[in-house]
Amino acid sequence: MTASSVPPKVGIVMGSRSDWDTMQHAAQKLEQLGVAHEIRVVSAHRTPDVLFDYAATARSRGLRAIIAGAGGAAHLPGMLAAKTAVPVLGVPVQSKALNGMDSLLSIVQMPAGIPVATFAIGNAGAANAALFAAAMLAFDDAAVAAALDEFRQRQTEEVAGNDDPRR
Amino acid sequence: MTASSVPPKVGIVMGSRSDWDTMQHAAQKLEQLGVAHEIRVVSAHRTPDVLFDYAATARSRGLRAIIAGAGGAAHLPGMLAAKTAVPVLGVPVQSKALNGMDSLLSIVQMPAGIPVATFAIGNAGAANAALFAAAMLAFDDAAVAAALDEFRQRQTEEVAGNDDPRR
Amino acid sequence: MTASSVPPKVGIVMGSRSDWDTMQHAAQKLEQLGVAHEIRVVSAHRTPDVLFDYAATARSRGLRAIIAGAGGAAHLPGMLAAKTAVPVLGVPVQSKALNGMDSLLSIVQMPAGIPVATFAIGNAGAANAALFAAAMLAFDDAAVAAALDEFRQRQTEEVAGNDDPRR
Amino acid sequence: MTASSVPPKVGIVMGSRSDWDTMQHAAQKLEQLGVAHEIRVVSAHRTPDVLFDYAATARSRGLRAIIAGAGGAAHLPGMLAAKTAVPVLGVPVQSKALNGMDSLLSIVQMPAGIPVATFAIGNAGAANAALFAAAMLAFDDAAVAAALDEFRQRQTEEVAGNDDPRR
Amino acid sequence: MTASSVPPKVGIVMGSRSDWDTMQHAAQKLEQLGVAHEIRVVSAHRTPDVLFDYAATARSRGLRAIIAGAGGAAHLPGMLAAKTAVPVLGVPVQSKALNGMDSLLSIVQMPAGIPVATFAIGNAGAANAALFAAAMLAFDDAAVAAALDEFRQRQTEEVAGNDDPRR
Amino acid sequence: MTASSVPPKVGIVMGSRSDWDTMQHAAQKLEQLGVAHEIRVVSAHRTPDVLFDYAATARSRGLRAIIAGAGGAAHLPGMLAAKTAVPVLGVPVQSKALNGMDSLLSIVQMPAGIPVATFAIGNAGAANAALFAAAMLAFDDAAVAAALDEFRQRQTEEVAGNDDPRR
Amino acid sequence: MTASSVPPKVGIVMGSRSDWDTMQHAAQKLEQLGVAHEIRVVSAHRTPDVLFDYAATARSRGLRAIIAGAGGAAHLPGMLAAKTAVPVLGVPVQSKALNGMDSLLSIVQMPAGIPVATFAIGNAGAANAALFAAAMLAFDDAAVAAALDEFRQRQTEEVAGNDDPRR
Amino acid sequence: MTASSVPPKVGIVMGSRSDWDTMQHAAQKLEQLGVAHEIRVVSAHRTPDVLFDYAATARSRGLRAIIAGAGGAAHLPGMLAAKTAVPVLGVPVQSKALNGMDSLLSIVQMPAGIPVATFAIGNAGAANAALFAAAMLAFDDAAVAAALDEFRQRQTEEVAGNDDPRR
Repeated sequence: MTASSVPPKVGIVMGSRSDWDTMQHAAQKLEQLGVAHEIRVVSAHRTPDVLFDYAATARSRGLRAIIAGAGGAAHLPGMLAAKTAVPVLGVPVQSKALNGMDSLLSIVQMPAGIPVATFAIGNAGAANAALFAAAMLAFDDAAVAAALDEFRQRQTEEVAGNDDPRR
Repeated sequence: MTASSVPPKVGIVMGSRSDWDTMQHAAQKLEQLGVAHEIRVVSAHRTPDVLFDYAATARSRGLRAIIAGAGGAAHLPGMLAAKTAVPVLGVPVQSKALNGMDSLLSIVQMPAGIPVATFAIGNAGAANAALFAAAMLAFDDAAVAAALDEFRQRQTEEVAGNDDPRR
Repeated sequence: MTASSVPPKVGIVMGSRSDWDTMQHAAQKLEQLGVAHEIRVVSAHRTPDVLFDYAATARSRGLRAIIAGAGGAAHLPGMLAAKTAVPVLGVPVQSKALNGMDSLLSIVQMPAGIPVATFAIGNAGAANAALFAAAMLAFDDAAVAAALDEFRQRQTEEVAGNDDPRR
Repeated sequence: MTASSVPPKVGIVMGSRSDWDTMQHAAQKLEQLGVAHEIRVVSAHRTPDVLFDYAATARSRGLRAIIAGAGGAAHLPGMLAAKTAVPVLGVPVQSKALNGMDSLLSIVQMPAGIPVATFAIGNAGAANAALFAAAMLAFDDAAVAAALDEFRQRQTEEVAGNDDPRR
Repeated sequence: MTASSVPPKVGIVMGSRSDWDTMQHAAQKLEQLGVAHEIRVVSAHRTPDVLFDYAATARSRGLRAIIAGAGGAAHLPGMLAAKTAVPVLGVPVQSKALNGMDSLLSIVQMPAGIPVATFAIGNAGAANAALFAAAMLAFDDAAVAAALDEFRQRQTEEVAGNDDPRR
Repeated sequence: MTASSVPPKVGIVMGSRSDWDTMQHAAQKLEQLGVAHEIRVVSAHRTPDVLFDYAATARSRGLRAIIAGAGGAAHLPGMLAAKTAVPVLGVPVQSKALNGMDSLLSIVQMPAGIPVATFAIGNAGAANAALFAAAMLAFDDAAVAAALDEFRQRQTEEVAGNDDPRR
Repeated sequence: MTASSVPPKVGIVMGSRSDWDTMQHAAQKLEQLGVAHEIRVVSAHRTPDVLFDYAATARSRGLRAIIAGAGGAAHLPGMLAAKTAVPVLGVPVQSKALNGMDSLLSIVQMPAGIPVATFAIGNAGAANAALFAAAMLAFDDAAVAAALDEFRQRQTEEVAGNDDPRR
Repeated sequence: MTASSVPPKVGIVMGSRSDWDTMQHAAQKLEQLGVAHEIRVVSAHRTPDVLFDYAATARSRGLRAIIAGAGGAAHLPGMLAAKTAVPVLGVPVQSKALNGMDSLLSIVQMPAGIPVATFAIGNAGAANAALFAAAMLAFDDAAVAAALDEFRQRQTEEVAGNDDPRR
């Protein structure tokens, strides 16, 4: 699902294998827009050293953005941001008891100094983080810019061309 | 407060003059990091046409990011994002009755297809949106990259060098 | 489902085709009360220009009310209200993660100056928006007034005439 | 503060004298737009019979809308709506402990069958309920329509003509 | 399900037939404890006059308590309390979108002057309202007092005598 | 503040001395209605044995109701109810961080089997618990019944006789 | 499931048999780590005297920690803590209407003076309370310390050794 | 404020100097109970490497517990717990916009595998974390056990000996 020979521009990481149901929507969007990416499970709590290594090498490995999804006391996006200057995009995964409100607040309420760009709870947030990463890359990558423009135009046309919900 | 002769790279917009108390923290950070920017009040509800014009011309005017702050039923960031491919960073302004929870949900819960990168409620969110915008620009702008690195290093040193809270 | 030859008095719009499950309850009530209406999918985020056109022409096309349903960061009702003097009735569609609390706050917490009349989350809100629109029209339309009175009387009788819940 | 010789078109009622701080914003807007109105304290809980009389006679007395403000377990708007076909606009007054979230839910979550058009918590909601009532009347009253158009145009100009928040 | 020849001491009322799923737990407990009761659907919004009549005659008909269940913008308990000196026990029925949080706040947050004794959301609340009503009656009714003591003793024994959850 | 020579009918207990600001509103209402009562600080957490003794002797000492106020993880009302058949009325005291939402849920969400009648957060809840206790006693005490009727009539007249909030 | 001949070091108690679905995750973890424990249903509301006895004898019976799970108005952990100096670990069981938010606040918001160590809502919280109890014991028990270290190392390896979520 | 010559048994860390207002209540309680401790500002986001070092050396330096306070997206307690087997006690500091609800959820909702023992929001939580740490130490330290017993006894006597809130 990742473009293999091209060095990845975006890293998709998630705190647990169970987050893949949500985070695959980020991968699909990047795939669709032709953005080279890598996909990893990195747990802030169970593999903190891996998290630190991942973040510390992100810039030198050429990553332009890291999309990080996590649920509950979601520390992954914020801790990545603490260890790298590469922009981190956080995706709150919908949690069982609190429906992702805990995930959202744990990700978005970062203190001044270390930003995490946060997106909606669940699948929509994962897809949008990918679209946002593509928009960041589009300034330097004409192919991504074109793919993004085409995506948005098609999305507009789909609504405008079929606006009777009863059909 | 804005660097005047240089064309702005980042636009700071807000829904109401009263949002300036919050959004000035974005402006200060951009100023500090040497990022040329512009500052405008644009109301989604009272000046929707201005909003549309602002968004529609953002890319051609050279903006690389738009930081949009709004409170309550905060529609400004999402509507800007609906009208431009320039990345939009949303700042939920703390509202009177609901302490910004309404602002946060109105900004972050965007549907799949149109992303808004959302930051914390209030001053921290405004400052972080600016830091995030700078991090986006840093890939192409060595001066901003250096300023950002210096900012983060100094911020780390301030904590590490004075870690007794009783002093 | 709409009375075709009569110019519509009420517009029912929704942000996504998936909102129809909810918004059909508005259409059914208008149908039942004999209020001519039209039904459209108009997305604030994916078709913002359509939204602006729809709102800008609403008054001249004879609409007396617009019922707008949307979920999550629900910007449709507020942006319609920003572009027309025709009264806008907002229906918060129940969202997946936050059960419509995000939809409700995004619609109801409008700033002073641009009102949106908001109704309950989900089906009840859609039905009630239609009843409210009919009540607005009833001042000038004796048939609607009679239909509305009959609806309310029948509703009262149904409860009063069968008040043992075990039957 | 009310136009005395003209029969009122809009009734402003509130559950307690302490709600006047909020509801005066409705009265001021109606005054400003030239809408004849009356102002009363009517408590759902302490004067339920007055509430019923008020609602039962509203239509025959010529009221075209009732703006009802209440806080906490706010039953006034819903009970008025239960007793009259005149459209009821509910204003959730900000409560002490729960900041008006209780007021909002008590007003907006009406069951299907009896609508209450709900506006934002506090002053903004009171002002917007008045603007909405005026918009309803504007279809039959050219003076109100003109006043409303002028209000909205002026409001737009105030933002557009002075969009630097630092001044 | 009600003891027919004995005049009822407790009235169980609910806003909608669909509340019976919840409120039957109140009826079962009263039945079990030998408390004569009646069961009615009375809607604050659809049959407000019936509500007023019910409340106004409650004392003279010998009711010692009214158990009122309602969901969403739950006005039934508070409006009953506004019209009678008979103690009203409110049961928040679990609502679809907000899980009964709206029901709870609409019932419990009564202003000073008109009390509603509120119980837990859903079945537990319905059962407990019945137990509470029985406890009120127990001061004057030795049979109810004995039944209640026996119920509580049995309930204690059931836990104490079988305290291994794995069996 | 308590009628001393008459044995108390109602006990007012609170978890901390700081709850008196709230609970004095219960005492004032009982005083005003001529209901003999006693006032105690009893902490579920700091004096659990006193709590158990208080509850265990409540019935034999002639108490007809216990009004219990507590904040935060408010266990006092529920634990009293666990140890006595005397009806317990719970008052959620407004807490510092969560405004009494924690207090409310800790008191009202009792499991089936042990009821606590819960009232509004803060002063209104304290006053209403007292009014409710008086209403319970009124069935057997003509003086209290008369005082309660007079209180409610005066309360109604105060609103009805002065219903212009601008005066 | 409990080590029978060894005196238990940890007590697992829960307010209801239905809490076992959640609390078994605590028992499994203790079993896995070789920590002797006992398991009991003890209801704060239905068997308060058993609760008091359990807590009062906990220290003398050699318990080093009590893990207490409860839902809704969850008073069990706090009341145990009120009656013993043995550390109490609280597990909020997910409740039906409010998803465990009531359980969480009822357990965690203890007043200063009587602590309850609180863990996450549901299964994760039960497992973590057991891990925490083991960590407390590990200072004095080399076998538990070794088992805990092994558990954590294995948990880290499981993530690190298989970090592609698509496999 | 710390016992200097004795090696600390408990570490008090906080994410920011501004957290000291809250966390001093932990220090005071440890001081009062004679528990040797150290106090540090360690920021998860601004000094992540210091955090990792602190946690990694905690066990070898003889710490038996770490009390960690943080607000907003509070990652400090969870990340400490990810890096050490020493028990971590989390204190949610009351945040500006959301009153500590974000802090609480960010700390308490840890996934299974890495526990953080969480206490109440604000000062009470800080004090209770210290009391809990002392209770953990009391099993091996007779002086702390005695100090703790005395503290609890005095606390009980203070309530029991002065239970009239009006004095």
